[in-house]
Amino acid sequence: MPESQQEWADRILAGDRRAIARAISAVENGDTAGIDLLKLLFSRSREAYVIGITGSPGAGKSTLVEKLAGEYRARGLRVGIIAVDPTSPFSGGAILGDRIRMQALSTDEGVYIRSMATRGHLGGLALAAHDVVSILEAAGCQVVLVETVGVGQDEVEVARHADVTVLLLVPGMGDDVQTFKAGVMEIADLYVVNKADRPGADRVEQEVTAMLSIAPRRDGWRPPIVKTVATTGEGIASLREALEQFRAFGEQHALRLERQREQWRARLLELLRHGLFEKAISRLNEGVLDARVEEVLARRRDPHSVVEELMGIVRGSPTGMS
Amino acid sequence: MPESQQEWADRILAGDRRAIARAISAVENGDTAGIDLLKLLFSRSREAYVIGITGSPGAGKSTLVEKLAGEYRARGLRVGIIAVDPTSPFSGGAILGDRIRMQALSTDEGVYIRSMATRGHLGGLALAAHDVVSILEAAGCQVVLVETVGVGQDEVEVARHADVTVLLLVPGMGDDVQTFKAGVMEIADLYVVNKADRPGADRVEQEVTAMLSIAPRRDGWRPPIVKTVATTGEGIASLREALEQFRAFGEQHALRLERQREQWRARLLELLRHGLFEKAISRLNEGVLDARVEEVLARRRDPHSVVEELMGIVRGSPTGMS
Repeated sequence: MPESQQEWADRILAGDRRAIARAISAVENGDTAGIDLLKLLFSRSREAYVIGITGSPGAGKSTLVEKLAGEYRARGLRVGIIAVDPTSPFSGGAILGDRIRMQALSTDEGVYIRSMATRGHLGGLALAAHDVVSILEAAGCQVVLVETVGVGQDEVEVARHADVTVLLLVPGMGDDVQTFKAGVMEIADLYVVNKADRPGADRVEQEVTAMLSIAPRRDGWRPPIVKTVATTGEGIASLREALEQFRAFGEQHALRLERQREQWRARLLELLRHGLFEKAISRLNEGVLDARVEEVLARRRDPHSVVEELMGIVRGSPTGMS
Repeated sequence: MPESQQEWADRILAGDRRAIARAISAVENGDTAGIDLLKLLFSRSREAYVIGITGSPGAGKSTLVEKLAGEYRARGLRVGIIAVDPTSPFSGGAILGDRIRMQALSTDEGVYIRSMATRGHLGGLALAAHDVVSILEAAGCQVVLVETVGVGQDEVEVARHADVTVLLLVPGMGDDVQTFKAGVMEIADLYVVNKADRPGADRVEQEVTAMLSIAPRRDGWRPPIVKTVATTGEGIASLREALEQFRAFGEQHALRLERQREQWRARLLELLRHGLFEKAISRLNEGVLDARVEEVLARRRDPHSVVEELMGIVRGSPTGMS
């Protein structure tokens, strides 16, 4: 007898690892079964503290995440880890698999680790990662660590989904990197200078301090700078304390609620955008699209006029019927 | 008397720099005037060779772009440069302005340089950059260099919009960076080992060669590896030659046409997605959205059910009227 949606949901709520894995896969693939499941789980799950961790390649994010997860585990909390891997947009495969990651945690039943591939399509991560957090919340995770590799758009996505965003910096990067960091500086609630046993750690700290003094945050939070050596575990306890302080600050100043409100608003609009497009595509005859592509390719028609026509077609208006 | 759309278009076709600048701003801001203008220009513009140049922060992209532009200028071609700057998603400002960039080219009337901000919203770059290329093509640019900062999603976008994609590598990056590069390896048609006077340049070249031998391209093109020292101009002539070889290969094997077909297809779908969402938002009462956000925030309703309702409302179906 096949398992019902309700049974599947119940197994996830009980923390069954195979049921969780299947749910995440369903959500990643955009299956309707996954969406039905999310509807069932949503009202019954408790909120986790979602910690986004980001920084340049080579900053030591994975090691830090592993140690931080251990720190929360030592306090008896269930921890979920979502590692967003860079993928080839063509092969679709993740470079680092779950299995070779974080081996120290791999036998701990209180930790759930999942790698997600960005898949190279716009908003793909944003759409699925939020739902994966929901599943881990339903499965009883009290802390969810979301690690993103890469710089740029990914950071913004982390900030959009997390309750707190941690930016990892390392000593010894070039000037261009410093320039770049200014662009993502504002999204961090907390700065970590990792590999702090290397020369130049103090200078990085001073630079961050200087930048923060130029542009103080409107919400009154002063982002702390924590020095760590993730490989040895040094500073990880301080990082956890700083994370808890931010959480307490957020509760006190209604900051967390306001951020969640913005996140859900953005999330609903994102899902709406995705849903409208999916429905439109299902109504669009492939032959019509192919013909229009050829016309644009030959410069017989311009893309904007073509899209106006396509919108008419998918919306069922008579102007699109010709 | 105000300028007509046709007069504006004519001035762009004549290469008027102020008219071009206004057109790009209109397109970046999503003004309807910009879209009307693009419709007028499309059939009258010739295609440029669009060269995407990407790589990690600090790889020397800007210097390379400046020197490569000079190389094309020396052959009498008009060159457009689009530099995609990392921006703060909150302030919206570009870090590096047009003015401080590429000073050697700033007095050359045959070069048009424009910085674009990624704005932190998904697909924002994709939507506007393609249209900016169209404007530069209309303005008579025969080569357009598109430089992206950052790693990850940006590279994919460059590959989607360019006729050829160049990946810059530099000696002396850590192991993590090497791992990362594997993820974007496949999108490059051409590899540049910049700062080739530094130790380790040969090793980078060997690594790329090894990677390419493991996964040869299906289209038969063998991506060349060009060593450069952009600061001195060394190797830039060879880079231009390699770019022309790829172009000739693309024409011969109908590779370019096939790529453009895929690009226009993706572009039409992207514009359709954007257009449908914009229309939906204009129909959605802000009060309804606010109320739904509060319900989700309180976990009284799940986001997926809410979005199904919102889709009904914006599509004018009776199920959404309640």
